[in-house]
Amino acid sequence: MNKMDIIEIIEKKKNKKELTKEEIYFFVEGVTNQSIPDYQQSALLMAICINGMNYREIKDLTMAMTYSGYTLDLTSVPGVVLDKHSTGGVGDKTTLIIGPIMASLGVPVAKMSGRGLGITGGTIDKLEAIPGFSSNVSEEQFIEALTKVGFVDGAQTKSFAPADKYLYALRDVTGTVQSIPLIVSSIMSKKLALFTDGIVLDVKCGSGAFMETREDAEELAGIMIEVGKLAKRKCKAVVSDMNEPLGYTVGNILEVVEAVQFLRGTVQNPRLKTLVITLCSEMYKLYLEQSEGVPEMTDEKIEKLILKSIDSGKAYKKFKEFVTNQGGDVSFINSIPYTLEELGESFVSSGCVEIKAKKSGTICGITAHEVGRASQALGAGRITKEDEIDMGAGIVFKKTVSDEVSEGDVIALIYADDKYKLKSAKKMMEKAITIKSDLKEPIHNDIIICKKN
Amino acid sequence: MNKMDIIEIIEKKKNKKELTKEEIYFFVEGVTNQSIPDYQQSALLMAICINGMNYREIKDLTMAMTYSGYTLDLTSVPGVVLDKHSTGGVGDKTTLIIGPIMASLGVPVAKMSGRGLGITGGTIDKLEAIPGFSSNVSEEQFIEALTKVGFVDGAQTKSFAPADKYLYALRDVTGTVQSIPLIVSSIMSKKLALFTDGIVLDVKCGSGAFMETREDAEELAGIMIEVGKLAKRKCKAVVSDMNEPLGYTVGNILEVVEAVQFLRGTVQNPRLKTLVITLCSEMYKLYLEQSEGVPEMTDEKIEKLILKSIDSGKAYKKFKEFVTNQGGDVSFINSIPYTLEELGESFVSSGCVEIKAKKSGTICGITAHEVGRASQALGAGRITKEDEIDMGAGIVFKKTVSDEVSEGDVIALIYADDKYKLKSAKKMMEKAITIKSDLKEPIHNDIIICKKN
Repeated sequence: MNKMDIIEIIEKKKNKKELTKEEIYFFVEGVTNQSIPDYQQSALLMAICINGMNYREIKDLTMAMTYSGYTLDLTSVPGVVLDKHSTGGVGDKTTLIIGPIMASLGVPVAKMSGRGLGITGGTIDKLEAIPGFSSNVSEEQFIEALTKVGFVDGAQTKSFAPADKYLYALRDVTGTVQSIPLIVSSIMSKKLALFTDGIVLDVKCGSGAFMETREDAEELAGIMIEVGKLAKRKCKAVVSDMNEPLGYTVGNILEVVEAVQFLRGTVQNPRLKTLVITLCSEMYKLYLEQSEGVPEMTDEKIEKLILKSIDSGKAYKKFKEFVTNQGGDVSFINSIPYTLEELGESFVSSGCVEIKAKKSGTICGITAHEVGRASQALGAGRITKEDEIDMGAGIVFKKTVSDEVSEGDVIALIYADDKYKLKSAKKMMEKAITIKSDLKEPIHNDIIICKKN
Repeated sequence: MNKMDIIEIIEKKKNKKELTKEEIYFFVEGVTNQSIPDYQQSALLMAICINGMNYREIKDLTMAMTYSGYTLDLTSVPGVVLDKHSTGGVGDKTTLIIGPIMASLGVPVAKMSGRGLGITGGTIDKLEAIPGFSSNVSEEQFIEALTKVGFVDGAQTKSFAPADKYLYALRDVTGTVQSIPLIVSSIMSKKLALFTDGIVLDVKCGSGAFMETREDAEELAGIMIEVGKLAKRKCKAVVSDMNEPLGYTVGNILEVVEAVQFLRGTVQNPRLKTLVITLCSEMYKLYLEQSEGVPEMTDEKIEKLILKSIDSGKAYKKFKEFVTNQGGDVSFINSIPYTLEELGESFVSSGCVEIKAKKSGTICGITAHEVGRASQALGAGRITKEDEIDMGAGIVFKKTVSDEVSEGDVIALIYADDKYKLKSAKKMMEKAITIKSDLKEPIHNDIIICKKN
């Protein structure tokens, strides 16, 4: 095809027409080798944003992006290898907890994670808060870790779905981030490049998520599952709430601390626990569906199995094995205190400010979006890709939604190495928290919104 | 405003929101000084293409583009100075005829013309087919020509609405040419930069035009008039047919020849004549509306005045004055024969091929679009901006739509300096011509579709 054809493709989508598989592959190829100039790419991205794509087009876009680069065959790994993906939220440390649990149950979990950008933290950033931990793993190391440990988390390299890297960077600066076909293909192309036996998708919904409304999140989940089906990959999805942050902590070391305390069984935020059990259950079901000679199990039995893996200390042991295997210093993990009250200087930035209740009443909201922005302001997240992260910066919640508070009670502690950061984050935190003194109706803040198969 | 804001502007239009005047000016300023990267420009262009703009937004976009560069004040020119614009067609040499007629009637016509691109010829290219003619006129020369001669045609320089130059080049390669707000702002920004007292717009409609359907052309005409009103410029529009080429010739020297023969009164294609009279009448009405102490006139009287300016030789004399004033060789004009049959070697390219009727019957269509492509293939038009034009290349029609022909009759002659060009153009010409032997219904090919005020 020549230069004329990309203009024809752009015009086709501009005129709400369906693109053929060949046209989509031509576009993705031109993005990957950068033979299509970015102004033509962005014109097509905008046309896709506004006029949409059907399932077949999204599947083709996804597959074209998957095969734009490196893929990783995992057939040499014994058993049913699964992947878990979160569309990104504030305080979401579930991967750090779920990976070890599943591995301890004999279900290998293969993850390729990203770094954080915007209000969403990245799992790789959190893991690299552990001294020595490296997400830079070769293909051989990745497969070996899966076989020996059962859980591995590598950083996405440029050669992994490179078309997505280019397109994402362009979408970020051309107002084309919010688009179901582009979000789905971006997520799924990277998931599909890793040849796992199944994926559990955690689609976040609410003020701290890509998808703010339940309808949008359910739509996204449904389309990802459809695209997974068309690509012949088994998928299950859970739509979970992200109106308030997940768990008690936001920030990189802080979230590692919470994950460790969770696995030890000493500190278990109820909403986080429900989400962990739900996602692990869905993963276990995916495992059962693909295992021969394994008896069927009730949901209750699966849940018991998951809880037992934590209570028995097996999951925590697996976590340390995983950390050690990727070069992390296990003595750092061992030094983590048993509660969030005992956090010493080695886990948090030097400056600390208390966020207090401005009146007495019930906390009826802690807006995830504002908390995410506060976390960025503290230095725990990136505003631009070049930003350095302060691993010890972040937020610890002493109270959560539906707790009763008296005026002056400490609701949260915020940490940063700079008083100006603390000052601006304090404002955001205060804006995030809503207290009502005359609350008449009960607060609905269920973490699980729905499941999709 | 910072870089963030252009993304917000793009997202606003993506979400079908109305842009403020400030946002539109910010965008155009960023285009003009190229501080907004082209990938962001093209994303916004696509969003405008798909989601549209209201009158107010189009007016602001137009004015921002007008004031992105040089403007020309004509208040020092006595009388009512008018402009005439055609949206572009195949064989459209009306400016060459109308300018001298109006000037001979005491109504100065100020034109800034473009070069041809695509199937549409440019007036400047046609004029430069006259040896010595220069469209490179300074501000002083432009005003002096208007005052002394009453007709001037200068080439649009880069400093004239530069934002349009950038945007047009980008639209051309991003599938965003077809868009009412972008077409209107592109045309009107250049028209408004020349401070005339009124504009008559000739909006072409049909296979050889931007706007293929009557509905689209009428919509475009209506919006241009509305935008003109909002910009406080008096406008009238005529929607005219461009399903078949205008007049007997297509090509640069050839169209000068036809214009000269028309002004001399020896060869006057009926559809071209109707269009010339209609456009001149509308211009004359604009003149009357803005002249004090001039008695009202009936349409018939205006038409008589126009015909008289031709028949008396005044318009032709004015044409020669205009040519001389811009450095053109008047002996070349004098050497033009009185009919198209007498064309010698000095007016056409060396190679000639006859296009003959393939069967007997009535010519019921000569598709302007195909004729335009044939003219490009012959070398009379540009395919890319860098292409050199062959001034002597082109087409002369011996027969037109609704003429009866016998098999083998010559319908047209095509001229080029290369037999391969002639061969490929011949095919296109044959495709363009439709002959029906059993035509039952009369052919409707009125040149004037409607007028708009």
